[in-house]
Amino acid sequence: MTVNRPDLGLPPGSLVYVGDRKPTETSLSIIGYDPIGSWTRTADTVEELLSYRNDAGITWINVNGLDDLESISKLAQTYGLNSLSIEDILNTEHRPKVEEFEDHLFIIAKAITWNNEKGPEYEQISIILTNNTVITFQEHPGDCFDAIRKRIEVNAGRIRKMGSDYLAYALLDSLVDEYFKTLDKLGQKLEEFENQAVDETGRHFLKQLQNVKQQVLSLRRIIWPQRESISSLARLDTDLISEELQPFLKDLYDNILQCAETIESYRELIISIMEVNLSSVSNRMNEVMKVLTIISTIFIPLTFVVGVYGMNFKYMPELEHPLGYPITWGVMVLIALGMVAFFKRRHWL
Amino acid sequence: MTVNRPDLGLPPGSLVYVGDRKPTETSLSIIGYDPIGSWTRTADTVEELLSYRNDAGITWINVNGLDDLESISKLAQTYGLNSLSIEDILNTEHRPKVEEFEDHLFIIAKAITWNNEKGPEYEQISIILTNNTVITFQEHPGDCFDAIRKRIEVNAGRIRKMGSDYLAYALLDSLVDEYFKTLDKLGQKLEEFENQAVDETGRHFLKQLQNVKQQVLSLRRIIWPQRESISSLARLDTDLISEELQPFLKDLYDNILQCAETIESYRELIISIMEVNLSSVSNRMNEVMKVLTIISTIFIPLTFVVGVYGMNFKYMPELEHPLGYPITWGVMVLIALGMVAFFKRRHWL
Amino acid sequence: MTVNRPDLGLPPGSLVYVGDRKPTETSLSIIGYDPIGSWTRTADTVEELLSYRNDAGITWINVNGLDDLESISKLAQTYGLNSLSIEDILNTEHRPKVEEFEDHLFIIAKAITWNNEKGPEYEQISIILTNNTVITFQEHPGDCFDAIRKRIEVNAGRIRKMGSDYLAYALLDSLVDEYFKTLDKLGQKLEEFENQAVDETGRHFLKQLQNVKQQVLSLRRIIWPQRESISSLARLDTDLISEELQPFLKDLYDNILQCAETIESYRELIISIMEVNLSSVSNRMNEVMKVLTIISTIFIPLTFVVGVYGMNFKYMPELEHPLGYPITWGVMVLIALGMVAFFKRRHWL
Amino acid sequence: MTVNRPDLGLPPGSLVYVGDRKPTETSLSIIGYDPIGSWTRTADTVEELLSYRNDAGITWINVNGLDDLESISKLAQTYGLNSLSIEDILNTEHRPKVEEFEDHLFIIAKAITWNNEKGPEYEQISIILTNNTVITFQEHPGDCFDAIRKRIEVNAGRIRKMGSDYLAYALLDSLVDEYFKTLDKLGQKLEEFENQAVDETGRHFLKQLQNVKQQVLSLRRIIWPQRESISSLARLDTDLISEELQPFLKDLYDNILQCAETIESYRELIISIMEVNLSSVSNRMNEVMKVLTIISTIFIPLTFVVGVYGMNFKYMPELEHPLGYPITWGVMVLIALGMVAFFKRRHWL
Amino acid sequence: MTVNRPDLGLPPGSLVYVGDRKPTETSLSIIGYDPIGSWTRTADTVEELLSYRNDAGITWINVNGLDDLESISKLAQTYGLNSLSIEDILNTEHRPKVEEFEDHLFIIAKAITWNNEKGPEYEQISIILTNNTVITFQEHPGDCFDAIRKRIEVNAGRIRKMGSDYLAYALLDSLVDEYFKTLDKLGQKLEEFENQAVDETGRHFLKQLQNVKQQVLSLRRIIWPQRESISSLARLDTDLISEELQPFLKDLYDNILQCAETIESYRELIISIMEVNLSSVSNRMNEVMKVLTIISTIFIPLTFVVGVYGMNFKYMPELEHPLGYPITWGVMVLIALGMVAFFKRRHWL
Ligand SMILES: [Mg+2]
Ligand SMILES: [Mg+2]
Ligand SMILES: [Mg+2]
Ligand SMILES: [Mg+2]
Ligand SMILES: [Mg+2]
Ligand SMILES: [Mg+2]
Ligand SMILES: [Mg+2]
Ligand SMILES: [Mg+2]
Ligand SMILES: [Mg+2]
Ligand SMILES: [Mg+2]
Ligand SMILES: [Mg+2]
Ligand SMILES: [Mg+2]
Ligand SMILES: [Mg+2]
Ligand SMILES: [Mg+2]
Ligand SMILES: [Mg+2]
Ligand SMILES: [Mg+2]
Ligand SMILES: [Mg+2]
Ligand SMILES: [Mg+2]
Ligand SMILES: [Mg+2]
Ligand SMILES: [Mg+2]
Ligand SMILES: [Mg+2]
Ligand SMILES: [Mg+2]
Ligand SMILES: [Mg+2]
Ligand SMILES: [Mg+2]
Ligand SMILES: [Mg+2]
Ligand SMILES: [Mg+2]
Ligand SMILES: [Mg+2]
Ligand SMILES: [Mg+2]
Ligand SMILES: [Mg+2]
Ligand SMILES: [Mg+2]
Ligand SMILES: [Mg+2]
Repeated sequence: MTVNRPDLGLPPGSLVYVGDRKPTETSLSIIGYDPIGSWTRTADTVEELLSYRNDAGITWINVNGLDDLESISKLAQTYGLNSLSIEDILNTEHRPKVEEFEDHLFIIAKAITWNNEKGPEYEQISIILTNNTVITFQEHPGDCFDAIRKRIEVNAGRIRKMGSDYLAYALLDSLVDEYFKTLDKLGQKLEEFENQAVDETGRHFLKQLQNVKQQVLSLRRIIWPQRESISSLARLDTDLISEELQPFLKDLYDNILQCAETIESYRELIISIMEVNLSSVSNRMNEVMKVLTIISTIFIPLTFVVGVYGMNFKYMPELEHPLGYPITWGVMVLIALGMVAFFKRRHWL
Repeated sequence: MTVNRPDLGLPPGSLVYVGDRKPTETSLSIIGYDPIGSWTRTADTVEELLSYRNDAGITWINVNGLDDLESISKLAQTYGLNSLSIEDILNTEHRPKVEEFEDHLFIIAKAITWNNEKGPEYEQISIILTNNTVITFQEHPGDCFDAIRKRIEVNAGRIRKMGSDYLAYALLDSLVDEYFKTLDKLGQKLEEFENQAVDETGRHFLKQLQNVKQQVLSLRRIIWPQRESISSLARLDTDLISEELQPFLKDLYDNILQCAETIESYRELIISIMEVNLSSVSNRMNEVMKVLTIISTIFIPLTFVVGVYGMNFKYMPELEHPLGYPITWGVMVLIALGMVAFFKRRHWL
Repeated sequence: MTVNRPDLGLPPGSLVYVGDRKPTETSLSIIGYDPIGSWTRTADTVEELLSYRNDAGITWINVNGLDDLESISKLAQTYGLNSLSIEDILNTEHRPKVEEFEDHLFIIAKAITWNNEKGPEYEQISIILTNNTVITFQEHPGDCFDAIRKRIEVNAGRIRKMGSDYLAYALLDSLVDEYFKTLDKLGQKLEEFENQAVDETGRHFLKQLQNVKQQVLSLRRIIWPQRESISSLARLDTDLISEELQPFLKDLYDNILQCAETIESYRELIISIMEVNLSSVSNRMNEVMKVLTIISTIFIPLTFVVGVYGMNFKYMPELEHPLGYPITWGVMVLIALGMVAFFKRRHWL
Repeated sequence: MTVNRPDLGLPPGSLVYVGDRKPTETSLSIIGYDPIGSWTRTADTVEELLSYRNDAGITWINVNGLDDLESISKLAQTYGLNSLSIEDILNTEHRPKVEEFEDHLFIIAKAITWNNEKGPEYEQISIILTNNTVITFQEHPGDCFDAIRKRIEVNAGRIRKMGSDYLAYALLDSLVDEYFKTLDKLGQKLEEFENQAVDETGRHFLKQLQNVKQQVLSLRRIIWPQRESISSLARLDTDLISEELQPFLKDLYDNILQCAETIESYRELIISIMEVNLSSVSNRMNEVMKVLTIISTIFIPLTFVVGVYGMNFKYMPELEHPLGYPITWGVMVLIALGMVAFFKRRHWL
Repeated sequence: MTVNRPDLGLPPGSLVYVGDRKPTETSLSIIGYDPIGSWTRTADTVEELLSYRNDAGITWINVNGLDDLESISKLAQTYGLNSLSIEDILNTEHRPKVEEFEDHLFIIAKAITWNNEKGPEYEQISIILTNNTVITFQEHPGDCFDAIRKRIEVNAGRIRKMGSDYLAYALLDSLVDEYFKTLDKLGQKLEEFENQAVDETGRHFLKQLQNVKQQVLSLRRIIWPQRESISSLARLDTDLISEELQPFLKDLYDNILQCAETIESYRELIISIMEVNLSSVSNRMNEVMKVLTIISTIFIPLTFVVGVYGMNFKYMPELEHPLGYPITWGVMVLIALGMVAFFKRRHWL
């Protein structure tokens, strides 16, 4: 857990990529649509990309990879972003936020994907919303927006009939939908832990549970600010978001709130599992020690008895007695039975 | 504990049933009443159902089962619900809420019933309130509204004299009354746990208590948002709720607040029980170990003594002494008594 | 700990006694006073009681016992209470509150008395305040208001000179004064626990402490809402409470706040006691085990030594040696002393 | 920990001394000053005291000891205090507060002094502030105001140039300055505890730490309300406090806030110390048990071996063998070394 | 942990150095710049320093070392600071704050540097902002502002084009950038602790972790008020801060918020590490005890058996039997195997 900030000490607004992975090469694509039709292009340069623009309908520009600082900066400046916002796009450890500017909204959101080895992985998705354009900046190729591209292409749902604000909403909505998948994976994992909590007494159970706990806490550090940011988006008083979008934002808020509450319930569950496991480990250990100690305790007095008749005194009348040996056995059996009875009566056996 | 969301990735407002149980077949019924009389019908189709409507009095339409998406959607649209609300009706994992629309209120509430095997069970009850109609959507047949139906039929209390808002209130009130029954069951269970906490040292006591704790926490996750939603209902400034209803909503709020406070006291009680039990388990174990160790400690020096006189040295004057054996016994008895006295003086016995 | 609500499922405003004790028979009394004089009457019926009323001065009607639903209802309706308030009077598990109505205030408060066996006991005191009348409903005969009755009778303090609002305040003030007595009893108990915490290692110490903790928590569940309700009373903007009463209400609030803070300090003290006790129990146990184990460890090597010379090999030169036996003793003494020295150096003895 | 309230049940405004110590005899003094000069008098009666008053400058009346109820009451009434305020002056367990009246402010503050045996001791200082007079009521003789008296006498700083509000501020400021001394003593104590936490495993370490914890918590119960009360003083909109005083009150607030934050850091430190100590105690105990058990385990198999050759069977070939004895020794040494090696490899030694 | 306040008891506004280190000798420097050029001077006296001033552009005066009270006081008074502010500059334990005055802002901030031996070290940086001047007071020479000096000199970024408010912002921004370096160091340390948590069972692991925990908490006590103070700076409505600066302050707030959230995640991580370590220590200890006890338990019955045949009874038929010895061995092997099998079946081995 380290803080990765190569930009520290630079003048405010310096453009440096900040993140825990090497930035991928930048690739550009653009989608245009209106109620009547839609088209898609990919471009090699920002100039080419901008030449495809068409003021008539809605334009969605997508940038994958934050490697080419110059192109990103040029594109961002074309749409009026200040250097601080560009800096934030490149700082992929930024917390989710919504910032209002005169002619655009600047939204930082997070995509969460589940990696079977490493748990949840985060990708920063920066969204610029102007009155007829949405620009998305992604850290890496690959996203959960294909269903939206499909809906635009085949004119499904209301997306083609609505403005750029609806597109931005749809993107956020599909990000949040993805969160549920990660939550579901974590939920399944926790269910397994819950089932093993009584029986699993090894040293690594808790270590692994703590691992999952750290994952839950890292999710929480993403989802709570995301919830806050969606809530502030819904309360924003701006022309960029039409009145018509309100119910959709409220629905989106309902969803992210459910994520947040699920995260809280996971935390409580983890605490429960830990408590059950710790008490189970100690109960089991106690049980082992108890049985073992009981065995010892039964034999110790008997060993004393046989020690007594192993002594070499010249004058020990018992040793001469013809029934000395069997009587001693009898006494020892009685002692053993007495001990067992005593333990039974005290419910220690 | 998993998140069940088959609707994820679909366009907002897509109609899919979301829940942890198979949806039951849809069945429709309608009740009409005014101060003078009342009537009841069941219907096979939405068209049939709607044909029974009568604008004069108050109408209560009840839908059991969320299987027939088309009928539900048709009915909902007849009363002006948007697709997001319909989606919420079908998402039976939705958190309780109140949403205000131009001509109706949309309320999501939860019925809680006690299942002797599984503990509390939840059923989502979605309520649509217009100025002369209440529509309720239930996941399954069977509810706690029969007393209300009876009151309408026999004209008991004020229900027939008041508006649709009173009907919606009465439904919520009877849901909250049901919560107390579940709380009572949990309270009885906790009382049993409390009585066993000192004596029950088995490994499964805590596991079962954690089970109940999870039930209490799941109840909490329902009751707190329900409290919030009833509070917002009481503060709503809308024509759909008459001034006359205010004292009833306040009373309802008192009730749900009592539920919430009871839940909190259960949490505190569970913590107490856990603390008592853990300390009891460890005290009892310590007791066992103590007695056992004391027995061992008394016999270990004695075994040493008899070992000494079991040695085969040629020249051991004690062995030849005629009183060697009885004197040795005397010494051993003294050692044992000394040990016991020492333990007694230190309050270890 | 169970929820006792026989009224569940009944229409709102149904009159049923709700409480954990059998309701006592209803008995009625009435006191009238003005700056010049005062009088007292008891009555058998509500009609008789009401016939004693005198509009000139201030009237205080007291009802002990909630058994006679009809009389209570008749009396309450005479003073304009709605059925929901009457229902609350009968629900003796209701949380403290203040409700404002057009011509009266409805106050639910709690009397707390200390029972030497069971700890704090609660009695619900419902207070109706109109512009010239106070009505109090008590669960049982017996209260802490005798000093007030005396002050009215002998014209002590300012009570006879002031309005019905001052009477209601005086009642609440004497209830809160009683709280301090219960807090004092609990404080004494906690002091005893604190003194025993280091020495008391029995299994029931913690159980009893948890008992007191539950009592403290139950007090807290009364005192915090009571504090809230007194605070809202002081902030109420109503003609029923004269400006002149404000400093008294503020003083009352100071008092209940001190109760609340005392409760919080008790909770912290209980946690301290538990921590000290738990660590004391474990320290003492460890001490026992340590001394016992040390004894065992010293004798085990010695027992080995004597075992060696108990072997029956034909050729064991030591056995033949005339000083074999005393030398062996010497060696054993040296081993024992060496062990003790080792333990001492490591500070285990 | 008990609640000391002899005034309970008395009519509101009854004058009774409430506190945990016998009230000291009342003694009166008066200081007058203006920019030009200053004078000091002591008095035997309130009448004498009041005769010294001089309306021209600022007057500071100090009352030590709350024994003489009549004098205190007379003095207080001269300055327009109502009986509830007088009651609060006498209730030395009152929490810090600021109350605004038409022509005076009533301030309850606490002096904290460090007693080397008992830890922090509290004295209630009630301050009345009118437009040209400050009256202070103290429980006992002795205070931290001598530096202020000196400043008035020698005309140091701005005190002689400013109004009565500055005097009241100066008093509070020197009280808060005293808090730091107590905090410093506690901080030194905690540093000692911190240094001993790893080595001190006795049973009384935690008891003493809990003692300090209780002192910290009692300080906290004074300092937090004091902070609140100073904050409300700074936000008060009254003619009694001149605009000029604002920066001083803000500075005072900074100081009391630092006290409050220091207290919180002490609480966190105490928790740390407890955790380190508990784990240290248990680690050390485990270490002891481990070494002891290892010794036992090594000798137990050896004792078995010598037991084998102590058996008296007629036909035991090893016993006859001339090298039986030395070979047995060899085997036993090998077993012992094997055990040690096994323990070493598992890092148990 | 002690409170260091030599100023206590002095009149408000007294100038005394308060801090935990000896103040360093005061040294003065001044930088002037406008869009066209920049210059730098050092001075020996305040008079010399002030003679360099030039009203045309922006002036930055830096004071290192708080030793020369007179110079500091003279300089501060030249810019209209009141004595309370000067006192705060000298009190280097003051919490971060922003205070607004008529013609200047007074900002107390903290520089945090990482010391490899002692962890985070704090230096108070007091900043005075007037409409064309910034004055910084530092405890010691050496700071993180060299990059800013360079930017002024080489006219990099926008700093030369903007006002004194931007300079103050740039200073705060570079302080916060430094925080990340300390957070990164702590993060690396915690990562090491995390990796050792399962294996490290020594007594000092937790002590060292608690050390880091105290460092994290001390950081938290700086960063949270710093966050608050930056937030209040951004919300300030003053002419001293131009509208243009708003996005920069927001960006600064984003950064300090990330610091605060990182600190919180460190606290959670520390708790996780402690839990894993504690359970690991106890698991490992239990393991040791288990294996050891198993060995003991196997040999104890065997030692009993050989004890039996070591008895010296005259009539013991087994002893005479030619196969007595090998049969006994067989029985003992069977007992040992039976014990092992029993342990295996119960999963204790
Ligand atoms: Mg930056
Ligand atoms: Mg990343
Ligand atoms: Mg973040
Ligand atoms: Mg991507
Ligand atoms: Mg969705
Ligand atoms: Mg929805
Ligand atoms: Mg949806
Ligand atoms: Mg369900
Ligand atoms: Mg149903
Ligand atoms: Mg009800
Ligand atoms: Mg009610
Ligand atoms: Mg009811
Ligand atoms: Mg009751
Ligand atoms: Mg209640
Ligand atoms: Mg009563
Ligand atoms: Mg009172
Ligand atoms: Mg008072
Ligand atoms: Mg704790
Ligand atoms: Mg009083
Ligand atoms: Mg006192
Ligand atoms: Mg009082
Ligand atoms: Mg207090
Ligand atoms: Mg004094
Ligand atoms: Mg001061
Ligand atoms: Mg200051
Ligand atoms: Mg000061
Ligand atoms: Mg410092
Ligand atoms: Mg601070
Ligand atoms: Mg410096
Ligand atoms: Mg920066
Ligand atoms: Mg930024």
